[in-house]
Formats: sequence, C-alpha cells, structure tokens
Amino acid sequence: MVLQKILHMNSGNGETSYANNSSFQNVTISKTWDLVDETLRNMLENGDFADDHCLNLVDLGCASGPNALSVVSHVTDTIQELRKNGDGTSQEIQFFLNDLPNNDFNSLFKLVEIFNKGKEVCGSRSRCSIYGLPGSFYSRLFPRKTLHFAYSSCSLHWLSQVPYGLESENEENIYIAVDSPSEVLDAYAEQYKRDLFTFLSLRGEEMVPGGHMVLTFIGRRVEDRSSKDDCAHLAILAQTLLDMVTQGLLKKDDLHSFNVPIYMPCQQEIESIISQQGSFKIKKIVTFPVRWDVNKDTDESPFDKTRSGNLISDCVRAFMEPMLVSHFGELIDCNVLFERYSVKIGEYFSKERTSHHMLAISMTIQ
Amino acid sequence: MVLQKILHMNSGNGETSYANNSSFQNVTISKTWDLVDETLRNMLENGDFADDHCLNLVDLGCASGPNALSVVSHVTDTIQELRKNGDGTSQEIQFFLNDLPNNDFNSLFKLVEIFNKGKEVCGSRSRCSIYGLPGSFYSRLFPRKTLHFAYSSCSLHWLSQVPYGLESENEENIYIAVDSPSEVLDAYAEQYKRDLFTFLSLRGEEMVPGGHMVLTFIGRRVEDRSSKDDCAHLAILAQTLLDMVTQGLLKKDDLHSFNVPIYMPCQQEIESIISQQGSFKIKKIVTFPVRWDVNKDTDESPFDKTRSGNLISDCVRAFMEPMLVSHFGELIDCNVLFERYSVKIGEYFSKERTSHHMLAISMTIQ
Repeated sequence: MVLQKILHMNSGNGETSYANNSSFQNVTISKTWDLVDETLRNMLENGDFADDHCLNLVDLGCASGPNALSVVSHVTDTIQELRKNGDGTSQEIQFFLNDLPNNDFNSLFKLVEIFNKGKEVCGSRSRCSIYGLPGSFYSRLFPRKTLHFAYSSCSLHWLSQVPYGLESENEENIYIAVDSPSEVLDAYAEQYKRDLFTFLSLRGEEMVPGGHMVLTFIGRRVEDRSSKDDCAHLAILAQTLLDMVTQGLLKKDDLHSFNVPIYMPCQQEIESIISQQGSFKIKKIVTFPVRWDVNKDTDESPFDKTRSGNLISDCVRAFMEPMLVSHFGELIDCNVLFERYSVKIGEYFSKERTSHHMLAISMTIQ
Repeated sequence: MVLQKILHMNSGNGETSYANNSSFQNVTISKTWDLVDETLRNMLENGDFADDHCLNLVDLGCASGPNALSVVSHVTDTIQELRKNGDGTSQEIQFFLNDLPNNDFNSLFKLVEIFNKGKEVCGSRSRCSIYGLPGSFYSRLFPRKTLHFAYSSCSLHWLSQVPYGLESENEENIYIAVDSPSEVLDAYAEQYKRDLFTFLSLRGEEMVPGGHMVLTFIGRRVEDRSSKDDCAHLAILAQTLLDMVTQGLLKKDDLHSFNVPIYMPCQQEIESIISQQGSFKIKKIVTFPVRWDVNKDTDESPFDKTRSGNLISDCVRAFMEPMLVSHFGELIDCNVLFERYSVKIGEYFSKERTSHHMLAISMTIQ
C-alpha cells in the first residue's frame, strides 16, 4: 500500500469528518499557545529578521478544518503584536499549510477564504498570504534557507511507512501492545527514529539561520514502549476488529496484515534523536496531559461513559477510517466497527480516565 | 450572487470535467511557448536575478487538470536549461498555482504528486516547490516585491463581477450580442477596464524589479465590441436557454437576470489599459487563432459537424455549468441544454469555422 494515498483525515464537514471531530487536537493546540508566543518573541526580539520584509511560516500536517486556521490566526496575530512594538512597519507573512496530497484542501481553502474576508472586514493592516503545500514532511518541501518558523501539532506520530517485518510478528495487534515481542517494539522505534531524523535534516536545510520550530508530539509518559495507557486506544480497536473477524465480518488475513503507521515516543527518545541529528537545539520542553475524551463543549459536564465513548470513537474514526477502508476494502462497515468500539472504549475509559501525554518542544536551528 | 463561489471549472476527472475538456486551453498554452521561452531568456540573461537563489513563479487562474502541470513543467524546464548555461549552481523554484478557492485543488494536488514523483524518478537535480494559492487575482495574493514571473492563460477574460445595470438592458442575451445597446457594451467594457487595471496594479506591487509577465487573452479581432464571430458561442447558448424558457423548462425571469461575467478585449483596449495603468511595459505581442473545435486528438481528421459540435459544447459546458446550476438551480438539466447546444453550435460552426482570436503579451515591470 502506498501510505501517502491512504493516510489522510476524513474529508469534508460531515458527521464523521475530521473537521467536526478534532476537539482533541484543538485543545492540544490551544495548550501550546504560551510556548508558541514565547518562541516567536525570542525569534523576533533578537533582531535577526529585522530586515526581512516577509516571514515564511508553515504548519506541517495541518489537516483540514478550523484547527488549521486557528493556528494561522494565533501565530499571525502574535507576530503582528510583536512587530507593533518595533518600528511600526507592516510585517508581511506567508503562511504555508502543508499536508499530504490526499488531504481535503478544497474544504480547507473554503475556510481560508472566510479567514481572508474576515481580515478584510477588520481592516487589518497586516497582510498574510496563505498557501496550500501538498507533500510529505518526510520529503523536501521548501527551497533551502527560506523558512522562518515551522509548527506542527499532533502530526509527527505518523510514520512515513508501516515498519518492515511486522506482518509475521504482530498478527492480531495493529500497533504496539502490552505483550508485543521486542522485534515489534524495535521495528516501530527504528522507523520512528529514521523518520524524525529525516524530518529534522530536511527542515534544517529549509530554515533560515535563526529560524525556530515548535513541535507537539503525542508521546509516552514512560520509557516502556508498551505501556498500557499509551497504546490502549489502538489495542481496543484491534480487539474490536478481531471480534468482527471471529464473527466472519472481516478476513483474518486482512487483520494480520494491518498495522498502523503511528509511534508515540517518550521525551528521552525525542531528545536523543534531536541531539544526534544535530541541526536543532532544544530551547524548552513543555509536557501536559490531554484527556482522550476532551471536548471543549462538554468539559464542564459530569462524566458520562456513553458520551465519552462516542467522543473518543469519533475522534479515532476521523483519522483511522480512510486507512481501514483502504485496507479492508468494501468488507468493512465502519458504522458497526465504531459503534462497537465506542462501547468498549467508553467502558475502558470509565475505569482508567486516561490522558494522552503531550510533549511540546521549542527549538532553534544551530 | 457571490461570483467567487460559483465561478469555477467543472471539478474532478469525469466526462464533463474541465480536466477532460480543456483541449482548447491546452492548444492555446502550447502556442505561447516560444513567447514564454523568449521572455524567460530576457529575464534571466540580463543578470538581475543572478543572486536570487530562488525564483517565485505563478500561474494565475490555473484551474485543475493536466494543463496546469504542463505549464509548471515547461516553465521550470526552460529555466533549468537557461541556468545550465550559467555557473551550474542549482536553481530553486517556487511555483504557485492560483485559482479561486472553489477550484478543484484536490484533483490538482493529485497531479502535483505525480509530477513530483516523476521528477524524483528522473533524478532531476533541480528543486521545484509547488503550492496552491486560493484567491482572486483581483485581490493581493503575494507579499510586495516577491514575484519574478507571472503567467496567465485563458483566465483574464473572467471579470470580477457581472457588470452593473445589465438586468434591465440585456434581457434575452447573456453576454454582448450583435444587437446589444451601447449601455450593455459600455457596462462590459468599463468593468473589464476596472478589472484589468486592478490586476496590473496588484501584480505591480507583488513583482520584483526586473520581473516579467506573459498573459494570454481570448480577444476580439476587431474594435467592434459586438462582432458576430467573437460572441456567437454565447449568443447560441442564450438562444438555447431561450428555447427552454419558451418550452417552460426554465423561468423567463431567470434568463433575464443571467449575464456571463466575461469580456473579450481587442488589442488596442489591452494596450491602452496597460499604458494608462503604468506598472508594466509591453515587450512583445503575439496573436494567433485557435479554432473553437480544436482538439489535439482529432486535428488531422476530416471535418465532422457532430464531433465539432460536441467538442465545443463540452468545452463550454466545462466552464459554464457551475454558474448555470447556481443561477437556474435544480430546474436546469444541463444534459438537455448541452445536447441541444451541441447541435446548434455544430450547425453554426459548419458554416463559419470560427476561431477565437488569441493575444499573448509579454511585459516587464517598469
């Protein structure tokens, strides 16, 4: 399978779309604003870019939906605010929205249009040109030394490919599980290391001297790569798929050959790769939990197992469905799968109340 | 009606898509290669950009489909060839594909992916980053002084809006017709003048000193703005719509309020607007005819009224359908409309064998 073709969020604005099921990502993004602001302040206040009449910024793995525009909006507002304290000249900005070519850029560009209209209506003095950039962030995206600031949130856990050698080792699992053999753990960790190394090398070529980057990872709390909390949402999905195999709704071989190209690293792993690769220097790391069932609309409500199960299930469906449909083909009924998953994950969550361990890292090119 | 929302080519890759019905545009584009090459040679040989390690190029109104990529391919190959004669350093290129936000960028980006893969396979030494830029070319698109070369083919006949005051004057016509009153002619010509003036002013701000532009217009042979040949394809569409009104298939009021935001200028008009606006200096004008029924696959075949009628009808449908559907709503059956149109236009064409009068203009910022 060509991963680039099937790895994308659910398109459009419908009930199962990523645009409507990305509260988790939204909350994560908003929890990193302080780090982003501090990074931009450091970047602009050292005077490196005083002569650059245009700053080039990118959101790598922006997906489609309102989250992408909230990043554009926050970052450009912060820059304009910082520049206002300077000599008062207008700061022009080019903001690149990057994702794989199968991302729903059509929906995203409709939001860009609304965003641009809004700025016109406000009579905003600043100009921001917004572009779509289709391509893998594991390949070169920009000319050398053109990028001032790169941002990526909840995207770098996606690997460039399913690690080699999993098919014979990882039969009924679809990711690392608590009982995974070391071959599976190593295959995932090595693929991750290669990919992050590649990512850092490429961005290192593309960044101007003094450029900064803020990356937010879905990580692991602990060094143990098969810690239950960090892989349970995929273990429960594997269990739901296995039930459907047992009932003859899916083929066993299809489950055995299905592995999700995701990896959730711990802090030490990321630090070690950044240090080995050498292009960037870490300035600050912030960690914070984000509950699996986070939803900005219902955060104050008392806990409800069914609602939480649905929220988590909808979120997982939004990023897993294109891949599942591509792999299992017409056989798979995603409504059935995710209804069942919702019950199971709600049950698990009512006992564990698990969070993802998020890591946000601010770094500069060295 | 908000023109930006409805003015786009037919999406996707289907039978009625623009991607599959743009032979006319394809032939037009290929007839301007000599002028494009000459322009790029002038631009690069005067040494202005010798220190710019990255050139920024744009195709304004690129639509979706293979034509857009053929422009990227030709222009970047020409630049690499020209740079090869220089000091041998690699020339990095940023190529921006611009169209209105409702253009089918998703389909376009799938072609970009294939294009990028092809370059990788060839081991191409040059790098070209390709971006999508959603927005009207009658608004600012780029930061000031960043653009080296702008290209636009078969797009600048689209106005930014339907000219004011047509509804009461242009009842059964949908564009300028041979019997149009002077108010209609003036309304169209004035809107065009305003729009092209705006376009030139904006590009003037965005271009670097020494920047060049090649624009290809669907024009008029003669100064007479209602010359039969240049508006017959829309006059016949109006006639087909009127037949459907007479038969009760469409509402009369809907036809009366429908006017196409297009204008085909003559050479003197364009020259006069460029001169009045003042940002650009014309270097060369090339004119050439492109037959309405041009099709690279059947150009050698003997004339066939039905086939030519279908070719012209399919081409007109690809750019008119979204606008017709938006205006006439569910009432309109485009299969019926364009079947009838195909017969009428085939009949007309068998007598007239008409061509569009194309004007390609090379200019530089002054």
